[in-house]
Amino acid sequence: MHFNEFVRDIVDFPKPGITFKDITPLLQDPKALQQAAEALYVLVNERPIDKVVGVDSRGFIFAPILAMKLNAGFVPVRKAGKLPFRTVAEPYQLEYGQDILEIHTDAILKGEKVLVHDDVLATGGTCKAVCKLVEQLGGEVVQCNFLVNLTFLKGAAQLPNYTITSLLSY
Amino acid sequence: MHFNEFVRDIVDFPKPGITFKDITPLLQDPKALQQAAEALYVLVNERPIDKVVGVDSRGFIFAPILAMKLNAGFVPVRKAGKLPFRTVAEPYQLEYGQDILEIHTDAILKGEKVLVHDDVLATGGTCKAVCKLVEQLGGEVVQCNFLVNLTFLKGAAQLPNYTITSLLSY
Repeated sequence: MHFNEFVRDIVDFPKPGITFKDITPLLQDPKALQQAAEALYVLVNERPIDKVVGVDSRGFIFAPILAMKLNAGFVPVRKAGKLPFRTVAEPYQLEYGQDILEIHTDAILKGEKVLVHDDVLATGGTCKAVCKLVEQLGGEVVQCNFLVNLTFLKGAAQLPNYTITSLLSY
Repeated sequence: MHFNEFVRDIVDFPKPGITFKDITPLLQDPKALQQAAEALYVLVNERPIDKVVGVDSRGFIFAPILAMKLNAGFVPVRKAGKLPFRTVAEPYQLEYGQDILEIHTDAILKGEKVLVHDDVLATGGTCKAVCKLVEQLGGEVVQCNFLVNLTFLKGAAQLPNYTITSLLSY
């Protein structure tokens, strides 16, 4: 399946000069949804995984599906103040200023093998913060897995110690 | 499986006087995640479904899984300004003031059968707005499907024209 036929360009979103990769046509097509989920799973290449971490909010779409296929648990990473239990926090850089991501302290046990999933790899700042959260809890990041890698933003260069995989590259 | 053993009470979250039902212990347990997904699917009771609508952001966790089990597409509903393509909008009531939910105009075709999924049914305001969005596009809401129904908030009474199902009731 040519997944890129199900991704549409939205010019000047979220602001002028940026072309946004809209994955909703892929999500709303039953076959494309199933085949994209299977292809993301195949990228993991049978590595044992205990937890799949998904990044709020579009990372929540495929991360729980991957967790089910891998017989793993699903763990949400969210912006500061959204998770109700005890958390550890990690700041990450935005274009202007910074924001904070959090994970529950009981979400990952020491030594657990973790798959990090998000929909898009852009500059890599979010993913780097997520990996640090996993490692703060003693987890091992086995792979960072994306639907889309915007390679021209060189996100992978910010994550030299991690295996980066994606279904689509632009 | 006693799913309620995987839901923990967080007292005074998000504010004093409210006890929050935290579903993350269920999500991070591989067996509980798989069995909850299957039980949510069983609630649909073999009704034909074309699209599963999930509400940002915790509704994104099980809605795509349900879509895959039902051979349906997944459609996100998000707060105003988050969806990149053309949208229709619907205001909904918050405790103080209101907010706006949006859906892509091409997300649902006229006559399509729709399952609405969210993690928690509280006062019903969000779900009512989601149903109106589906109906604006000509879709038919077949069922509103929740992980948790906080029955003491009487959300179902706000949705008299819809079939409400949930895995857990409090």
